[in-house]
Amino acid sequence: MSLEPNDQSSTMVLIVRTDLKLSSGKLVAQAGHAAVEVALKARKSEPDLLNRWRNEGARKIALKIPDEDSLKRLFGEAQEAGLVSYMVKDAGHTEIPPGTLTVVGILGPRRAVDALVGDLSLL
Amino acid sequence: MSLEPNDQSSTMVLIVRTDLKLSSGKLVAQAGHAAVEVALKARKSEPDLLNRWRNEGARKIALKIPDEDSLKRLFGEAQEAGLVSYMVKDAGHTEIPPGTLTVVGILGPRRAVDALVGDLSLL
Repeated sequence: MSLEPNDQSSTMVLIVRTDLKLSSGKLVAQAGHAAVEVALKARKSEPDLLNRWRNEGARKIALKIPDEDSLKRLFGEAQEAGLVSYMVKDAGHTEIPPGTLTVVGILGPRRAVDALVGDLSLL
Repeated sequence: MSLEPNDQSSTMVLIVRTDLKLSSGKLVAQAGHAAVEVALKARKSEPDLLNRWRNEGARKIALKIPDEDSLKRLFGEAQEAGLVSYMVKDAGHTEIPPGTLTVVGILGPRRAVDALVGDLSLL
């Protein structure tokens, strides 16, 4: 997650709880949900950011976070920082109880996103 | 992937090549890319479908496919069937060579999608 000080590019991060030990299929579906909602949200509130991000190649990184409290805290911080973000609450049809918080997606300037998630490891 | 004959609901499928043996992180990023592009494409060409799908809970399933030829064939079939679809070509920054086709995303009526992918297994 290193970046040059003058890096103006944007990035999407998909932050996944590892304590739930989701299957690959479930992980992909949950992260896909976050990615879709973040993109559609950005399309409404920050269309320039969304276009810039897609034109730059739509950088996406999957990161891991250990538990629900950390996920909620990160989501709160992303919102406070004014970043486009979305937290997935699972419908609970499979694997986990309904209402489980699974993934947070964030889209924003790489510098601002990195400041929030720079200490998380790649999934 | 079974469904009732009168099922009018819609679904998104994210079909992932298993022969590339991608890491979970890479898989999540690639499938997230497909999901975003399919959703944004649907927003333009079939906004009613996209809204219906989201209002129904945005059903998403991850499926596996064995190789590139099968992935390309499926993408062609989805396009012929008039379904909103997108095939991810990886930029190749990590793990795999640039231009590698990795994931196909499809959004459409569950019945039509199931007719195309009903023989694929869950990821």
